[in-house]
Amino acid sequence: MGPVPHVSFLTDYGLADGFVAACHGVLLRRGVSALDITHLIDPGDVRRGAAVLAQTVRYLPVSVHLAVVDPGVGTSRRGVVLVTPGGMLVGPDNGLLTPAAAVLGGVTESVALAARPGVPATFHGRDVFAPAAAELAIGTPPAALGQPVDPAAIVRLPPVLARVSQPEARADRAATELEAEVVLVDRFGNVQLAATGDLLADVGLVPGQRAEVRGVTAREGTPLVLPVGVTFGSVEPGELVLYVDSAGMAAFAVRDGDAASRLGLAPGDVVTLCPRRARPDRAPV
Amino acid sequence: MGPVPHVSFLTDYGLADGFVAACHGVLLRRGVSALDITHLIDPGDVRRGAAVLAQTVRYLPVSVHLAVVDPGVGTSRRGVVLVTPGGMLVGPDNGLLTPAAAVLGGVTESVALAARPGVPATFHGRDVFAPAAAELAIGTPPAALGQPVDPAAIVRLPPVLARVSQPEARADRAATELEAEVVLVDRFGNVQLAATGDLLADVGLVPGQRAEVRGVTAREGTPLVLPVGVTFGSVEPGELVLYVDSAGMAAFAVRDGDAASRLGLAPGDVVTLCPRRARPDRAPV
Amino acid sequence: MGPVPHVSFLTDYGLADGFVAACHGVLLRRGVSALDITHLIDPGDVRRGAAVLAQTVRYLPVSVHLAVVDPGVGTSRRGVVLVTPGGMLVGPDNGLLTPAAAVLGGVTESVALAARPGVPATFHGRDVFAPAAAELAIGTPPAALGQPVDPAAIVRLPPVLARVSQPEARADRAATELEAEVVLVDRFGNVQLAATGDLLADVGLVPGQRAEVRGVTAREGTPLVLPVGVTFGSVEPGELVLYVDSAGMAAFAVRDGDAASRLGLAPGDVVTLCPRRARPDRAPV
Repeated sequence: MGPVPHVSFLTDYGLADGFVAACHGVLLRRGVSALDITHLIDPGDVRRGAAVLAQTVRYLPVSVHLAVVDPGVGTSRRGVVLVTPGGMLVGPDNGLLTPAAAVLGGVTESVALAARPGVPATFHGRDVFAPAAAELAIGTPPAALGQPVDPAAIVRLPPVLARVSQPEARADRAATELEAEVVLVDRFGNVQLAATGDLLADVGLVPGQRAEVRGVTAREGTPLVLPVGVTFGSVEPGELVLYVDSAGMAAFAVRDGDAASRLGLAPGDVVTLCPRRARPDRAPV
Repeated sequence: MGPVPHVSFLTDYGLADGFVAACHGVLLRRGVSALDITHLIDPGDVRRGAAVLAQTVRYLPVSVHLAVVDPGVGTSRRGVVLVTPGGMLVGPDNGLLTPAAAVLGGVTESVALAARPGVPATFHGRDVFAPAAAELAIGTPPAALGQPVDPAAIVRLPPVLARVSQPEARADRAATELEAEVVLVDRFGNVQLAATGDLLADVGLVPGQRAEVRGVTAREGTPLVLPVGVTFGSVEPGELVLYVDSAGMAAFAVRDGDAASRLGLAPGDVVTLCPRRARPDRAPV
Repeated sequence: MGPVPHVSFLTDYGLADGFVAACHGVLLRRGVSALDITHLIDPGDVRRGAAVLAQTVRYLPVSVHLAVVDPGVGTSRRGVVLVTPGGMLVGPDNGLLTPAAAVLGGVTESVALAARPGVPATFHGRDVFAPAAAELAIGTPPAALGQPVDPAAIVRLPPVLARVSQPEARADRAATELEAEVVLVDRFGNVQLAATGDLLADVGLVPGQRAEVRGVTAREGTPLVLPVGVTFGSVEPGELVLYVDSAGMAAFAVRDGDAASRLGLAPGDVVTLCPRRARPDRAPV
């Protein structure tokens, strides 16, 4: 990290006001630099904030991660520090931090930030969380910032759906299906599912195969059939592909195009995937 | 600040061109880092730039603040350095810097930047203001950069409206009203007024009271009645609240919602606030 | 540059995902800071990326420039290092880097980045290019990162159009015209042409003259006549001007307005310019 301690920083504050800079200022006054992850999480979208944080944190050198997507600011929700083998997380106790904590090895210690009298009620990023992150970055032990709390009592988001199932009346392995929720759509329109690449392989969806996908809004019931590839480059420009993305998750992409728009998929939607089956019973039209 | 001098930086340059980076480069070549405030001020919106700068500057550790929202670039408007007890400001002499100067303790010395021959006419951020800010950050005295000018001659924006008044035919304190202009709408749709929290309290609008608000476009003449709270959390999700925001100013918010859209308010609009009065003369319909 | 090596960084990754931060993390883990140019190049718009990079790079102190606008990620396109007298460039071999290389003095050595086994196929910014840029920034010689390739074999974008021509049946110098392609439209709506200010002067378009412009969509065949100025300030608010911009290129602007919208011009459009001619044969209507 060099001589200057760093804190990574993710919020839904946007980039058009002075909110992010005020937090940077609070950090810098204590000699701590910020490494911005993003500040363009949609206002209050805790799920997206949690997903982006969890996928980015493993590439960051920093040992303290500050994240504030906090529709509950000004209510009784508490602020927490989560200590993990791979670093510390600071932010509201609303589920934003827990997926990243899992990536970093799991919560080994958690602390509820002590309320400080006289702190304004509406900008905890600047007045509560950034000061706490700065303290941690310069070496203050978490326990000095508040009371220990049971890691099991930390708020968690409802789990995202990713499960292997077998449709009724079929017991053979070939009939295994994968149900998975859409977790993220990125700038390029790539659609990331909650299923890992390993789970995709478990149901036989490996490069070279063709996949059948149901639940795609834009298809209205007709299963979508698309190739499983290693990357976008596995298909021609404009074509769809199912692949394992750079975060290790199953994803849809359109080469040089926007899969989310093409498929009408958004976070929270659920699709069902299986290898394409022979259909001897389907007569040509 | 550590070993590297910092300059804070606010513009209307946007983030899609290379303008901000060129200025960062000019600073960094002289060993000076930039702390970005925002570059998404609407093109030429000097008022918003001034307001965001003034509200952010007190949280920054830096001693030099560079701001460029400059519809007059390429005209005869001059560049200035404003020296204050809390730091220095550099930018166009168009009112952008003066509210921040007031926050930092008022202008004690001002310098008109000397024109340098051969400087291109259209990108003073890169060619005039960033070089001047870098010089100041590394210790060059302001007087070395140009001629002293009378602080009274520095351009100021028209003042924003915030005044306590009494409607005709009422002389009792209970009839006191507060007229205030909308200054800022932030990413969350919170609507900040020109009135300080102290002024709000002066007319009896304190947490626990209910406020009557006139001048709200979306209400077409019907006074709006809403609670005065400490924070968004003082009301239920979806409800409006009048509160003192993190900058110490009176503001409207909708918990988990967008007050600016709900109320149809934008910067420059004027609203009139007073404590809700008993209306014995109003018959039920 | 101070004690910390810097890498400049331009992509089409956007600012709403964690992609940019993951690359920053990869750099910072090796002790290298990033100076962001922009990450808002439209997805896959290699031409705009190349133009913004080329115009910004001369103002940056850094010796390594990392740029990734890479619709071909996951195909067989290779990654390259271009060494120039003014620094090194790292990115995909798709023409993105070559205009900047020309600005920096031309390619003196080029290296095709060696493929590394086990690298995911879809995020070469994080997994291939940022690691290579970090290596270069900390002093690893380019030749250690792959095989030398002939600079003449590096992919170049089709040249942008900028040529002086003479219409048929006119051989006098006064009839000389300048055909030029629109290269960039910036946040303010200023329209930059592929023609340098010198070329503009060569056809007699210097401040004080009036220019005739054909090919402007919004004019439907009627030549546009506008003044040649030194800057926006040469005309009244709301008026068009032809001038030499801060990158030294011919450009259209509207003072306090948006020339691209007014003229209906976008990158790739071609306009023809000449000094306004006396038209004795045109009778007043």
